[in-house]
Parts: sequence; C-alpha cells; structure tokens
Amino acid sequence: MAVKVLDESVGKIVLIKLKGGKTIRGNLQGFDQHMNLLVEQSEEILEEGKTNSLGTIVVRGDNVVIISPPRSGS
Amino acid sequence: MAVKVLDESVGKIVLIKLKGGKTIRGNLQGFDQHMNLLVEQSEEILEEGKTNSLGTIVVRGDNVVIISPPRSGS
Amino acid sequence: MAVKVLDESVGKIVLIKLKGGKTIRGNLQGFDQHMNLLVEQSEEILEEGKTNSLGTIVVRGDNVVIISPPRSGS
Amino acid sequence: MAVKVLDESVGKIVLIKLKGGKTIRGNLQGFDQHMNLLVEQSEEILEEGKTNSLGTIVVRGDNVVIISPPRSGS
Amino acid sequence: MAVKVLDESVGKIVLIKLKGGKTIRGNLQGFDQHMNLLVEQSEEILEEGKTNSLGTIVVRGDNVVIISPPRSGS
Amino acid sequence: MAVKVLDESVGKIVLIKLKGGKTIRGNLQGFDQHMNLLVEQSEEILEEGKTNSLGTIVVRGDNVVIISPPRSGS
Amino acid sequence: MAVKVLDESVGKIVLIKLKGGKTIRGNLQGFDQHMNLLVEQSEEILEEGKTNSLGTIVVRGDNVVIISPPRSGS
Repeated sequence: MAVKVLDESVGKIVLIKLKGGKTIRGNLQGFDQHMNLLVEQSEEILEEGKTNSLGTIVVRGDNVVIISPPRSGS
Repeated sequence: MAVKVLDESVGKIVLIKLKGGKTIRGNLQGFDQHMNLLVEQSEEILEEGKTNSLGTIVVRGDNVVIISPPRSGS
Repeated sequence: MAVKVLDESVGKIVLIKLKGGKTIRGNLQGFDQHMNLLVEQSEEILEEGKTNSLGTIVVRGDNVVIISPPRSGS
Repeated sequence: MAVKVLDESVGKIVLIKLKGGKTIRGNLQGFDQHMNLLVEQSEEILEEGKTNSLGTIVVRGDNVVIISPPRSGS
Repeated sequence: MAVKVLDESVGKIVLIKLKGGKTIRGNLQGFDQHMNLLVEQSEEILEEGKTNSLGTIVVRGDNVVIISPPRSGS
Repeated sequence: MAVKVLDESVGKIVLIKLKGGKTIRGNLQGFDQHMNLLVEQSEEILEEGKTNSLGTIVVRGDNVVIISPPRSGS
Repeated sequence: MAVKVLDESVGKIVLIKLKGGKTIRGNLQGFDQHMNLLVEQSEEILEEGKTNSLGTIVVRGDNVVIISPPRSGS
C-alpha cells in the first residue's frame, strides 16, 4: 500500500516531514521497509520559503512522519 | 479488530491525530500492520478551523495516536 | 491477565490515559496484543469536566499508559 | 528474578513509579513479561499525601520505571 | 561481559543511574537480559546527600543508564 | 538502496546529522544494517563554522537522522 | 566494522557520549551487540575540565551516541 505509492514516487519530487519539525524536499531515489529513504537534489525547507540545499541524502526511516508527492499547483 | 474498522474506513474520510499534536483529515486509501497509512486529499487541521492542504501522503505508523472516521454531524 | 480484564471490559465504558496527558472515555469494542484499542462513543475528557466528543476511534497501543473500567459511583 | 518478586507480590499492595512522574499504589493482581500490570483498588499518589482513586487499572508495561512492595512501617 | 560484572555484583551494593536523572543505591539481588533489576534495601539519592528509602524494588531495564558497584573510599 | 549509497561513500567525507541537533563530518569507514557508523578524522560542526575535532568515532545508528556525502562546491 | 574498532579499543581509554549530554571517559573492558559497555576507571567529564570519578560501570547500550578512542595529543 504505502509501498506502492512510494514505488510510484521513485524518480519524482517528494516532500518529507521529519520528527522535530524539519521538512525536506527532493527526488526520491529509493526506500526500504524501514522507510529509510534515498533522496537526491534534496533541500531543507526553512521558514519564509527559504531553502538549504542538502544534495544527496540518506534519511533514517524512524525519523519520518509524513512523505508526500507534491501536488500540482503547489 | 482495529484492522476491521480500518478496513471499513478505506475510501472514507478519517481524522488522524499524530504525536506532537498534528491533526490530519483525509481519504484513507490503505494501511498496514504498523498503521502506516496512505491518505489522499489530506489536509492538516490548524487552529481556528484553518486547514493546510497536503494532498496524497504516507504517514509512518509510529507517529499515529488516534484514527477516527468522522461522525455524522461533525 | 491484562487480557482477561480487557476481555471482560469489551462492551463497557473504560477510561484510557495516554502519554502526553490525554484522557479518553468510551465504550471498548476490542483490543489486540499491542493494546491497540477500538473505542466507540468516545470523548476526550478536558479540564473542568468538559468533554470533546470523538466518536469511534482506533487508539495505537504504544500511546496507552493506563486503561481502567470506571468505578461505580465515579 | 524480577518475575519471582512480582509473583510473590500478587495479592499485595505495591508502589509503581511511571515515566513522567506518576506514582500509583494498589493491589497487584497480575503481570506479564512486558511488565503490563493489573492493579486493583489503585490510587494515584499526589503531592502532600493526597490521593486520587483509580479503581482497577491495567498499566502498559513500557511506562513502568520501578515497582516496589511497600515496606513495613512506611 | 556486562553479564559477568553484574553476576559478580549480586549480593553487593550498586549505584544505578536512571533516565530522567534519578540515582538509586541498593543491594543487587538479580537481573535479566533486559537489565531488569531486583534491588533490596534501595534508596534514592537526592541532592545534598539526602536519601529516600525505597526498600525492595524492581527496576524496568529500559530506564537504566549506568550501573556501578560503588568504589572503596566513596 | 541506502546500502548502495553508503557503500559508495566508504572512504569519503560524509555529513551526519544526529537527533538532538549535532552535525558531524568525517571519513566514513564502515556501517552496518542498524546504520551504526565508523567515521575517521571526524569533527563536530558547531555554529559560525567552528569545528570540534573528534578523531575516530563509532556512531550508534539509532541517533542518525540524515547522512549525506558533501556536495562539490559546498 | 564498529565491532572491529570496539574490539581493538578493549583495554584502552575511550570517550563515550550519552544521550542527554553526559560524557564519560574510561578503560573499555568489553561490549556486546547492543553496545552495552563495561568501562573501568571511568569518570564523567564535567564542564570546565572537572571530572567526577565513577569507577567501574556498565553502560546500557541504548544510551550511547558516540564512542571514540581519544586521539593522541588530546
């Protein structure tokens, strides 16, 4: 279920909300059953629309709250 | 038990309360044994009745506190 | 042990205290080995005796601190 | 070891300290390997010697810090 | 390793530091693989050298940070 | 997936963000399935570009939030 | 990997950073797969270079953030 949606999101831009409040946007390259994520061209989204480029990152799954493909128009 | 209720809620609007205080409302599309959730047309419910549209999201189950189908009349 | 008491509480009103301080009261419909709970006609008990109706809810077990059948006279 | 002491405490008054600072006193009726506890005639011990009667409760084991049979003379 | 040291400490006075800052001293009577501890004649060590007698206690292992046999001369 | 990227990062400089806010930079020498990391010539990155040299360290995986190879130009 | 480095550190002085901010230095005598540690002649490193002698301690692994052999010259 979640796996199918994440599978379909590989190669696309996703938004990731982490515990502690960080929000990250980037190109999902892969994931595993723990929701460990591989994200390329990632950036942290700061307040007031600022971003902080992070490049390629591995996110440890236990930090993930929400993953979403960005909506058209957003 | 919980599985049965969640099964019956697939395709319907549910309210999800997360650790840390976030409340999300959206159309439940699926779930797994960890309570990982797939929710479409989701929105975060902010104070004073405001909402923040989130679109399709995957919620990692360990963040979930309460899931409820909205009551008629609410 | 706990299972037996919870079994006997199915169909009855229980009080549930959650991590973070929330208190919920409702009709216990079911539970599983993780203490995931299905509760109907539930309401959050707020300060000063106010309540906030929640309807049917699934509570993820790892949030539970204490479950109690309400005492007669309370 | 812990099991033996808890076994011997069944049917007796125990003090239970929980994460977050709550202290509960009551008659231990049972427990399992997760330290889930069944306690009857329980009461929360508040500051200044006040108590808040809780009746029969199930305590989810992961909240437990310390369990002790009260000492004679206390 | 840790097991061997804990084995050798059974019947002796140990210091136990818990998450959240509590420090407990008492006679270690037993332990298991989760570091659940059985401690007799235990006391909580408060600030300024004051102590609060706790008697026999079971400590749930996930609260333990450090266990040490007290050094001679301390 | 994450494993492949981490494999390719062995012998290279990575940035590691930990729960609690610490950021560490160093030469990744190895990792395991828990994301336990072995990092050489590591340093903690403090505010205002200051660093605190840590040398060789083992990082316990459950503290890891994000691992990234530093981007060229950063 | 981490195991190899920890193996090589047995009998040597290591620095251990714990969740919550404690830093401990001592002679590593052993460890297990949970990173439970046995440390002799240990001392807590306080602010301003002060130390608090702890003697022999068992550290429960889930509290560990970073373990490092001290560098020459530090």
